Amino acid sequence: MRTTKTPDVVIRRLATYLRLLEEREYYLGQYISSSELGELAGVTPAQVRKDLDMFGEFGKQGVGYPVRHLKRQLIHILKVDKPSNITIVGVGELGSAFARYLTRNPSGRRGEGADAFRVAALFDVDPIKVGQCVGGLRVDHLDDLEARVKEMDIKIALLTVPAPVAQEVLDRVVKTGIKLFVNFAPVRLKAPDDVRVNHADVSLELHQLGYYL
Amino acid sequence: MRTTKTPDVVIRRLATYLRLLEEREYYLGQYISSSELGELAGVTPAQVRKDLDMFGEFGKQGVGYPVRHLKRQLIHILKVDKPSNITIVGVGELGSAFARYLTRNPSGRRGEGADAFRVAALFDVDPIKVGQCVGGLRVDHLDDLEARVKEMDIKIALLTVPAPVAQEVLDRVVKTGIKLFVNFAPVRLKAPDDVRVNHADVSLELHQLGYYL
Repeated sequence: MRTTKTPDVVIRRLATYLRLLEEREYYLGQYISSSELGELAGVTPAQVRKDLDMFGEFGKQGVGYPVRHLKRQLIHILKVDKPSNITIVGVGELGSAFARYLTRNPSGRRGEGADAFRVAALFDVDPIKVGQCVGGLRVDHLDDLEARVKEMDIKIALLTVPAPVAQEVLDRVVKTGIKLFVNFAPVRLKAPDDVRVNHADVSLELHQLGYYL
Repeated sequence: MRTTKTPDVVIRRLATYLRLLEEREYYLGQYISSSELGELAGVTPAQVRKDLDMFGEFGKQGVGYPVRHLKRQLIHILKVDKPSNITIVGVGELGSAFARYLTRNPSGRRGEGADAFRVAALFDVDPIKVGQCVGGLRVDHLDDLEARVKEMDIKIALLTVPAPVAQEVLDRVVKTGIKLFVNFAPVRLKAPDDVRVNHADVSLELHQLGYYL
């Protein structure tokens, strides 16, 4: 499941840095120091410098990072500079919520990276759901997955299916050539080495928080 | 925001190990090796041993970890051995989806840790939502938050409110004494040092995946 030598936590922080820069207004030519960015992100200035140094020299000693340039670089590194089509598989409550949210508000943010992810298709196997319209999109049957993935050049799938069928559904979607997944079912999924599955379920979040009770 | 010296990633892996052990059937007295557990979790055997060694000597050289004992220890470390009350603030689409999901299927899992998190209260400010029933629970007005948090001894809040009001709502909930949050709004929130906010929004997940496109 490793496709790169850059640790996942670094990529996660880069996505956070980008969000922080996008959330705020900066004037043309403004700089941000590693201390300021670290303060916003909740990490040390050294961590910020180390993370960014992995991808190039974006800053100037004693001045900081030119915000506009840094944003562009982060957008480029995270490849959100052109839109990618995504699909939501499983149009239950959570899948519907994401479908409505992401179609209304692509990728949930403003700024240059705002249109980075576009929900292009929804899938389910429930005959009651197939054919219905959710978030302006028609729900397709999972049997049509392969054709639609090719047609729409879908790169990422959000899996919002029940835990007992999640592995089976993942295996099926993997066969269509999609290699990037976010799984929201409370079950750990196995995938081939060249496939990345991020696990993002609420119960895992809760169990982690338990430690800090 | 640091309340412990154990890195968050370790806690996240412990929660994953526990889930993996809960998902499978093990016979009484069965052992699992660090290689087997690592294989399931997608980490090296050395990582498994290092993570678990931080909390005690749970395994036997050359034999592995006694599954039953290891599960108990993980449940104990993650403090999911007794139920904690949680609240969902913001009963929009995502909040409703979580409310229905978590009330139907407490903490989304089976086994000894299954009742670890109980949704005890739902809050919103929308007069249309307040008084409605979602997942078997009545939606309360945010004005009643402080009283309900004390009454129900609520320890964790899931924030599923729109991004523009997320900081304001967090500040308000922090005042009631809740110190653990999962924020699903696509915005980075600031909190006092003794408050932990995990960010778990779908757009951040997507932006991370972009890197692997």
